[in-house]
Amino acid sequence: MSIRRPLITLLTDFGTADPYAAIVKGVILGRCPWVQIVDISHEVPPQNVRAAGHILSTSYAYFPRGSVHVAVVDPGVGSKRRILAASFRKQLFLAPDNGLLPMAFGPDGPDQVVSVENRRIFLQPVSRTFHGRDIFAPAAAHLARGRPLGSLGPVITHWTPGSLPEPCRKEPGVLVGEVITTDQFGNLVTNLSVSERATPVVLRIRGRSIRGLAESYASVRRGGLLAILGSTGRVEIAINQGSAKKVLGAREGTRVELVFRGRRGSP
Amino acid sequence: MSIRRPLITLLTDFGTADPYAAIVKGVILGRCPWVQIVDISHEVPPQNVRAAGHILSTSYAYFPRGSVHVAVVDPGVGSKRRILAASFRKQLFLAPDNGLLPMAFGPDGPDQVVSVENRRIFLQPVSRTFHGRDIFAPAAAHLARGRPLGSLGPVITHWTPGSLPEPCRKEPGVLVGEVITTDQFGNLVTNLSVSERATPVVLRIRGRSIRGLAESYASVRRGGLLAILGSTGRVEIAINQGSAKKVLGAREGTRVELVFRGRRGSP
Amino acid sequence: MSIRRPLITLLTDFGTADPYAAIVKGVILGRCPWVQIVDISHEVPPQNVRAAGHILSTSYAYFPRGSVHVAVVDPGVGSKRRILAASFRKQLFLAPDNGLLPMAFGPDGPDQVVSVENRRIFLQPVSRTFHGRDIFAPAAAHLARGRPLGSLGPVITHWTPGSLPEPCRKEPGVLVGEVITTDQFGNLVTNLSVSERATPVVLRIRGRSIRGLAESYASVRRGGLLAILGSTGRVEIAINQGSAKKVLGAREGTRVELVFRGRRGSP
Repeated sequence: MSIRRPLITLLTDFGTADPYAAIVKGVILGRCPWVQIVDISHEVPPQNVRAAGHILSTSYAYFPRGSVHVAVVDPGVGSKRRILAASFRKQLFLAPDNGLLPMAFGPDGPDQVVSVENRRIFLQPVSRTFHGRDIFAPAAAHLARGRPLGSLGPVITHWTPGSLPEPCRKEPGVLVGEVITTDQFGNLVTNLSVSERATPVVLRIRGRSIRGLAESYASVRRGGLLAILGSTGRVEIAINQGSAKKVLGAREGTRVELVFRGRRGSP
Repeated sequence: MSIRRPLITLLTDFGTADPYAAIVKGVILGRCPWVQIVDISHEVPPQNVRAAGHILSTSYAYFPRGSVHVAVVDPGVGSKRRILAASFRKQLFLAPDNGLLPMAFGPDGPDQVVSVENRRIFLQPVSRTFHGRDIFAPAAAHLARGRPLGSLGPVITHWTPGSLPEPCRKEPGVLVGEVITTDQFGNLVTNLSVSERATPVVLRIRGRSIRGLAESYASVRRGGLLAILGSTGRVEIAINQGSAKKVLGAREGTRVELVFRGRRGSP
Repeated sequence: MSIRRPLITLLTDFGTADPYAAIVKGVILGRCPWVQIVDISHEVPPQNVRAAGHILSTSYAYFPRGSVHVAVVDPGVGSKRRILAASFRKQLFLAPDNGLLPMAFGPDGPDQVVSVENRRIFLQPVSRTFHGRDIFAPAAAHLARGRPLGSLGPVITHWTPGSLPEPCRKEPGVLVGEVITTDQFGNLVTNLSVSERATPVVLRIRGRSIRGLAESYASVRRGGLLAILGSTGRVEIAINQGSAKKVLGAREGTRVELVFRGRRGSP
C-alpha cells in the first residue's frame, strides 16, 4: 500500500444541513476521482476566521505529507479579496486572504504563497457568493492532481497578517492567557503551554484555583475540576465527566492565570 | 487518473446521530467496495419531501456523469408506495415515488424511469421501516456497478407528480415569489431568477425594500441588508455578516416581490 | 471489483464541530492510505458508554467481513484502563475496556480479545487526553493493513463486563421492557423482540394502549400512534409523520409492556 493517494481536507462554516459542502466535493471528484476527502469541520461559527485558524493550526500536522487543506471561512466572498495557495511544512493550503492561514501557521512563515488567479481552472461562470464551489474546489483538485503551486497564479510576498492570542507574563512566575476554544465535552482549551523545565503549581480561572496538572480526567473524583496537559500541548481545564464550560461559565476569551515554580523560579 | 470510479450520493432525513446513514453505507460498500460515497445531507427536516427535492435540484449537476443519487425522504416507507429509479442528464437517481424526483428535475422529464421491484437484489428479509438499508442501498450499489436501470424493474411512464413553487406575475414588471429555503448563514434563497435582459430595481420583503443587486456581501456595510444573485442563479436576501432570517423574521414561504425595469419595461 | 478494500468505522462522542474525528482520520490515512473510513456516529452523548454499545450492536453486522470498528467513548482516557482489540463474527473491534464491546456483542462472546499494549505502534508521545489519535487510530490502521490481532498485545480472557437491559416477564403473556433509544424521528426503540410464534395483542406505554403491530407507518392516519417491528427486529413505537418521543413524553428507560397471545398462550 505504498502508492500515494491524494488527500484533500475541508474546513468551512457551511454547516452540514445545506448541500454546499457536498457540492464542493462533487466538483473536486469530477476533476480528481481518486482523491480522498476528509471533513475537518463544517461547523466553524459563521464567518469566524479566528476559530477556523485555530482549528487548522491543531489539525493539519496529523495529515500525510502533500495533503491539500482547503479552509473556506470567507466573509469577503465575491469582493476584491484575494485567494491564497500556500505551501508549509510539506503540505498545501488554500484559503481567503483574511488572516486565516497566518493564524494556522503561527510565527513560522509559509514556504511559498501564490495568489489564485488562473481563471482557466475555475468553474465558469464564477458566482458572487460561492467561491468554495467555483474557485476553491477546482484549485484544490488541481493541486491534488500534482500540479505545481505556481500554476494557480503569481507568487506574492505580502498578505493579510493574522495571529492567535498569545499569553503574556503578568509578573515573574505568572503567565496570563485565555480560553481559545471550548469543545464538545465542555473542556476549555487555553493558549497556555507548559515546558518540561517549568511546572505550574496553581491555575486560576473565574475565582477558582486548581492545584497542579492531573494525570488523567479520571484521576479526580467524578464532577471534580482539573487542569491537564491537552492533546495539542496546551493546558486544558476540564471536569471529570462534566462540562467545565457550564460549571465555570467560561467561554472563548475567559482569562486564565498559571502560576509557575520552574527550575529557575520562573518559566 | 482517468479510470472511472463509481460515485453514490446520499440525501436523507436520517440525521447524523443515529447509525442509519452508516448502515446504508455498510450495505453499499459490501456490494461495491470501490465506490465513493458523498453525503449531500442527512438533515433534511423529517419527512419534508419538498425540502429534499429542492436540495437535490441544486446539487446533482455538480457531480460527475454517471453518479447515482439516492434520496430517502420517505413518509410512506413500508406501504405500497413504489420506489423509482430514473436516468436524467446522464445521472442516475433513486427515490420513493412521492414527488421528490419531479421536484428535482423541474419541467424537463427524466429519460427513463423504472419501478424498483427486483427482489433478488434486496436485502432479505425486507423490513417495514428501513428500506434505505434493505432496498435503496443494494439498488444503488447495483447501479454503481454498472448494471442497467432496467435490471431493477419494469419501465413505467406514470408516477407521482411534484414541483417546487414557481413565481407569478402580479402586475407588469412585478414578480411575486417566495423564500424556498434558508441556509446556515441565515441567507434567504428565493425562487426568483434574474435574466440578463431584466434587472430588478427593488426587492420587497416583510415591509423592507432593497434597491438593486449587490456585487458581493461585503459591498454593503456590516449588518447591512442586501439582495444578491446567489450561487444557484436565484435571488438571495442576506445581511453582511449577519442573519437575514433572524433580522427579517423570514422563513420558508415568506413572500418576496421583485420590481423590474427591463429593456422592454417588464421581465 | 473483487479486490478487498480495508474498511474502518468510527463511533465516538467527539461531535462534528471539533476537529478530533478528522485528526483520527488523518493519522489512519497516513498509515493506510487506501482504507475506506465510515463514520457510524460522532454524536454519542458524551461519555455514554451504553448508548455507544447499543449503536454498535445494531450497526456492525451490515459492514463487510474484516471491517475494523473503532468505538471511542472513553471517560477513563489516560487512566490505567486498558484498550481492547477483539475479533467477533469475522469483524474486528477496538474500544476501551469499559463494557462497550460486551454490550455490542450480547450474550455471545468474542472469538479473541487482546489488550492493546504494543507501544511501537502508537503515536509518540502518547497524550493523556486523546488516545483516539495516539492509540486507536494507529492500532486501527495496523489491523486494516492486515496485521494479526496478536501483534497489538497479549491475549486476555477477562475484561470489564457489560450488557444492555433485557426485558423480563411480569406475568404469563406479559413482557416488561423499556425504551433503549430514541431516534431522529422521535421513534422509540424498545428492547422487546417479537418471535414468529408469538404475536403481541397490546402494547402499553405511559398510560396509552396500542393494539397490534402496524404494517407500516402510513397504515395509520397522520398523527396516529402505532407499534411496528423495527429494522433491528425490535418493537418500535412511532407516530405517523410525528414524534412519539414528544407526544408521549418518553425517553431512554421509559417502561413498555407487551401483552402476548402466542400459539401456546405465552411467548
